Amino acid sequence: MSSYRFAVSVMPREGILDPQGRAVESSLPHLEVENVRDVRVGRRIELTVEAEAEAAAREVVERLAAELFANPLIESWTIEGVPMHAPVS
Amino acid sequence: MSSYRFAVSVMPREGILDPQGRAVESSLPHLEVENVRDVRVGRRIELTVEAEAEAAAREVVERLAAELFANPLIESWTIEGVPMHAPVS
Repeated sequence: MSSYRFAVSVMPREGILDPQGRAVESSLPHLEVENVRDVRVGRRIELTVEAEAEAAAREVVERLAAELFANPLIESWTIEGVPMHAPVS
Repeated sequence: MSSYRFAVSVMPREGILDPQGRAVESSLPHLEVENVRDVRVGRRIELTVEAEAEAAAREVVERLAAELFANPLIESWTIEGVPMHAPVS
């Protein structure tokens, strides 16, 4: 068994309201920032999967993304492999 | 002026408690997933910056990451350029 680490980026689908993104945009004038637009706020989940091969590990991540990390009706996601790091205590 | 799009990944620093990561791990047995560990949950913010050059745009993102998107005491962040997409209505 090998260890594979992945990052799952979950973002609101285009056309779906993004209240957190609007909140960020509303706060920009207070920081005197005027040249920023189209802010979208989502989540990033990193995880380590033990599996015989990378493809099998990625299948687990695909399932978790669709069933646990994201709401497929309103969110889309991408999965990328990332370097392993020291376990977090 | 050109448009540059960035993604900022904000994650809990190593050693900092991550209740959302623990919640995900607690729900894995219900999905009959046993081979997943070290789950960390953070945020991903995408935004478009208008600037004369990519370096100037990235400076704006660096400032927003440190002052608005993340709490530097307990979170770290990475910034990456991403492809422009159609503006979100």
